[in-house]
Amino acid sequence: MREVAIIGLGRTAVGEHWERGLRELALDAIQAAMADADISPDEIDALVIGNALAGQISHQNNLGPLIADYCGLRGIEAVRVEGADASGGLALRQAGLMISGGVAQTVLVVGVEKVTDMVGPARVSALATTLDAEYEAVQGATPTAMAALLMRRYMETYDLTLSQFEGFSINAHANGSKNPGAMFRNLIKAGRFAGAPMVSEPVNLFDSAPEADGAAALILTTTERAIDQVPKPIRILSSAAATDSLNLTDRERMLFLHAVNVAAGRAFERAGKSPRDVDVLELHDAYTVLSALQLEAAGFAAEGKGWTLAAEGRLTLNGDLPISTFGGLKARGNPLGATGVYQALEVALQLRQEAGDNQVGNTPRLGMTLNMGGLGSTAVAHLLERIVH
Amino acid sequence: MREVAIIGLGRTAVGEHWERGLRELALDAIQAAMADADISPDEIDALVIGNALAGQISHQNNLGPLIADYCGLRGIEAVRVEGADASGGLALRQAGLMISGGVAQTVLVVGVEKVTDMVGPARVSALATTLDAEYEAVQGATPTAMAALLMRRYMETYDLTLSQFEGFSINAHANGSKNPGAMFRNLIKAGRFAGAPMVSEPVNLFDSAPEADGAAALILTTTERAIDQVPKPIRILSSAAATDSLNLTDRERMLFLHAVNVAAGRAFERAGKSPRDVDVLELHDAYTVLSALQLEAAGFAAEGKGWTLAAEGRLTLNGDLPISTFGGLKARGNPLGATGVYQALEVALQLRQEAGDNQVGNTPRLGMTLNMGGLGSTAVAHLLERIVH
Repeated sequence: MREVAIIGLGRTAVGEHWERGLRELALDAIQAAMADADISPDEIDALVIGNALAGQISHQNNLGPLIADYCGLRGIEAVRVEGADASGGLALRQAGLMISGGVAQTVLVVGVEKVTDMVGPARVSALATTLDAEYEAVQGATPTAMAALLMRRYMETYDLTLSQFEGFSINAHANGSKNPGAMFRNLIKAGRFAGAPMVSEPVNLFDSAPEADGAAALILTTTERAIDQVPKPIRILSSAAATDSLNLTDRERMLFLHAVNVAAGRAFERAGKSPRDVDVLELHDAYTVLSALQLEAAGFAAEGKGWTLAAEGRLTLNGDLPISTFGGLKARGNPLGATGVYQALEVALQLRQEAGDNQVGNTPRLGMTLNMGGLGSTAVAHLLERIVH
Repeated sequence: MREVAIIGLGRTAVGEHWERGLRELALDAIQAAMADADISPDEIDALVIGNALAGQISHQNNLGPLIADYCGLRGIEAVRVEGADASGGLALRQAGLMISGGVAQTVLVVGVEKVTDMVGPARVSALATTLDAEYEAVQGATPTAMAALLMRRYMETYDLTLSQFEGFSINAHANGSKNPGAMFRNLIKAGRFAGAPMVSEPVNLFDSAPEADGAAALILTTTERAIDQVPKPIRILSSAAATDSLNLTDRERMLFLHAVNVAAGRAFERAGKSPRDVDVLELHDAYTVLSALQLEAAGFAAEGKGWTLAAEGRLTLNGDLPISTFGGLKARGNPLGATGVYQALEVALQLRQEAGDNQVGNTPRLGMTLNMGGLGSTAVAHLLERIVH
């Protein structure tokens, strides 16, 4: 099996891109990634696309040829991978397999999502296709409503108040405020979190990440070629994916993200690492309760204690486990199927020490991404490290 | 790189499955494939799903956890792959990579599509998402209308009449009439083809394949394990995918399926085979003109001569290049994202000599599948052979 490394990074700002379509957003990210890797289109063997909702929102499926052609890669092998908000992480994983499986030398991964063309109930309905259509969405359930049920249960089980979750959002916005590409750059002041307008009780406006447009691209190749090609290649140490019951109420333990546990556990095992080794983490902070549950499922905190890491300030840029370092889903914004690619890109920037004002205080050697879809029904984990050569 | 083999086959009948939902169709195919391979769910390492339109038609994305859970595989790694009607072929290719890339020993592939829950203009709009939304579908273009443009151009360029295409549909229905799982089992009589009611001139009712519900499943493993596990393992000799301009009018040569040419050419090259070696072929016969164009692009006929293979009767079960052996898309039915998996399953049945009344007359050693999406904008080719041990 050949080892895989990241040699190119490119992304658009996350937000409302009224002026750019799906293919144009992808182009912006891809061109930046190619420039970063200093390679030309004819060196790319395949394209893997992470996207969740283009069919519903842009009436566009079959994204492979659409994006390949528009980005100067006509004819190339191209495939779209979908797993709700975990589409980007899954695309990165499948792209890596093309290299380790020996069918490609250099693969382009792009996560792209155009959400804001659709608003109101139509957008909510599109988002609800990531839940169980026949047992959840048909009852009127939405991702936010399901997250609210989870949060209510978490608060009841562990006897917590709303303000005990504020650390996650305060940190995300503090980091987002330094990222010119973040959707929200305002700060959330301590003590103001719990008073924000309710969205779906107990989830409020300061608790939920905004859906947004954006595209992020990575160029992968063999570590051998990577070392020749760029000064700071990033090795994909390991990768793993898992699923859980899609229907939330079918899960044996609703407050345990089984898929995250399995994916993270396998990623650690395959790399011979443990949570203690992680210097920087991008997790799927679509709602604060999901951040807490991911920290617990992935082994960073005991069950019921995930929220304490935020409350104790350990997750900030200068903490011992920095998360959401460019603002996370909460402040950078959540471009759904592109999110997993943004996460890997941001961890790679940290490992390259090129995160600028968002650089974490330690000198990170090992980074991790946790990307989820459908409230943890799909989960993908990646471990990344700087190749020293 | 580890070699990959097919050890289990399962499928539902193709047609209007009002009584079964998406997950239930998948279950039927998966249970049959597991029984065929004589393995249990705990021996499956990952699930790859080919599906084109569940988001539009069933309001269901995130199919990985949905199908994994319902089929007794809760927790397993699962991913959906989408490339319009080529989704199934792409899923098969990605699943093979998981084995050759060393991350899985045994992988389940399922192609599943539920189309008939949506009818009339809504269904046509959903189908049109496989075209270029901004340059084709927005103008009112549909896949059938675009196929009609292609056929008109083909007929004008090569000075052909409608009846010269009849061999394709006569053959498909003759083969479908022997397949209990085919959607259409009626025969088309010679001479009646050209008089069928027009759908989109010159494409008529006898020329276009019906969209349908269905699911097909394959179980893949290493050839090493396959030989121990089943009496008739089928080796995946090679696999390749390519794209073309999504927008038909952007193609340099509209009557040449570039993506099919590249995918087929690479599949032959990787296997050290040529079109002459192929004993049985399942191609993407959504419209007769596409069959002719695929035969040309894949090297089975000279340009402009693809139709002659049908006219000369060479494509029947007893011809020298049998195609659509269980009815093809035209008579078996076209379950969109499941089609590519049906094709591989049918070729595998031929190679196992288990095709019953649909068995081809020669003793096939090498079989091929050509799966396309979006009028050839995505193409996937596989070469399969019986492992003799």
